[in-house]
Amino acid sequence: MLNISALEKLVHELSRLPGIGPKTAQRLAYHILRSKDGYVERLSDSLVRIRAEVHTCVKCFNYTDTHECKFCRDIHRTDDSLCVVEEPSDIMKVESSGAFRGRYHVLHGVISPLDGINAQDLKIKELIARIDAGLRSEGPKIKEVILALDADLEGDTTILYLAKLLQGKEVRLSRLAHGVPIGSDIEFIDDRTLGQALENRVEL
Amino acid sequence: MLNISALEKLVHELSRLPGIGPKTAQRLAYHILRSKDGYVERLSDSLVRIRAEVHTCVKCFNYTDTHECKFCRDIHRTDDSLCVVEEPSDIMKVESSGAFRGRYHVLHGVISPLDGINAQDLKIKELIARIDAGLRSEGPKIKEVILALDADLEGDTTILYLAKLLQGKEVRLSRLAHGVPIGSDIEFIDDRTLGQALENRVEL
Repeated sequence: MLNISALEKLVHELSRLPGIGPKTAQRLAYHILRSKDGYVERLSDSLVRIRAEVHTCVKCFNYTDTHECKFCRDIHRTDDSLCVVEEPSDIMKVESSGAFRGRYHVLHGVISPLDGINAQDLKIKELIARIDAGLRSEGPKIKEVILALDADLEGDTTILYLAKLLQGKEVRLSRLAHGVPIGSDIEFIDDRTLGQALENRVEL
Repeated sequence: MLNISALEKLVHELSRLPGIGPKTAQRLAYHILRSKDGYVERLSDSLVRIRAEVHTCVKCFNYTDTHECKFCRDIHRTDDSLCVVEEPSDIMKVESSGAFRGRYHVLHGVISPLDGINAQDLKIKELIARIDAGLRSEGPKIKEVILALDADLEGDTTILYLAKLLQGKEVRLSRLAHGVPIGSDIEFIDDRTLGQALENRVEL
């Protein structure tokens, strides 16, 4: 056999997944080999299906297997509040907080010049179009845009860029609050976070 | 959509892999969704291939995509020493130690009555047949059998069972040495291991 074996190929492909090193990939491959009851077929089938059926929502760019995703179709959600996230997986995080009942908009990335990702690579003009359509009463009116982006350099850059773009438009713009994570020890909080937590202290 | 979505199905299948919880499965699924350059197709293809092409070696029961595995075909390995392991993945561990150049035999499990695994479920009669064939000069003569099984209850039980089966046969039987792992701190070694390390101390 001159070409790479099926087992080596599977180990190679698995090791390209995030957080999966060569050793874990090998363990997973051996587990898959040992598996019974058609597991390999089901896993392979679900991979094929995900490519064939899953695409982005025409409105918010979340992943979906329908024309509009379930959050855009949900009639119990309010149209006037829009939460902007970086990736579709972030929607799950916001949802599990239970603190938001509006609509979403997925940017599919943040501005990161070092990685060659600029504003035009993201779903930013689609975001502006959604807001503008509401302002012209051609679509649901959006009163508030919440930027739920990561609290890092790229997230901050994107927030600044969006704030500039939305300047002068009749829409409230907000970002996530910085502060002490619940259950954490003050001793281990970094200075900037603690500074923000002090500044934004809540009266009792 | 009444049936489960493709994304949920992939998360479900991934979360059945060892060491992959629901959160990691979701992260992997989203990564797979975002992946480009035909990664999904390659991963799916390698799964199909592994099922179609990989089977157990006719001699040692290692996984292989040829009739005999590469260790059984390797003419530079000696036939007189046989290393018995629990799983095919254990062969990789022994190989990377560089301390063994003989042949292998994979039991595909260890005796574990609590899990309902008995001697007849393992490749034990095939092991005896290999040894007997050598003794009758119908196959390569095996002079030593090294039992490289886990140092736990099931491993020990299997070693005792094999020792009894091989009693009276003209073959040296050995097991892995117990002792202090290289680079480890004496303070953190359990009493039984330290006891064995003392008993089997090496003269300098």
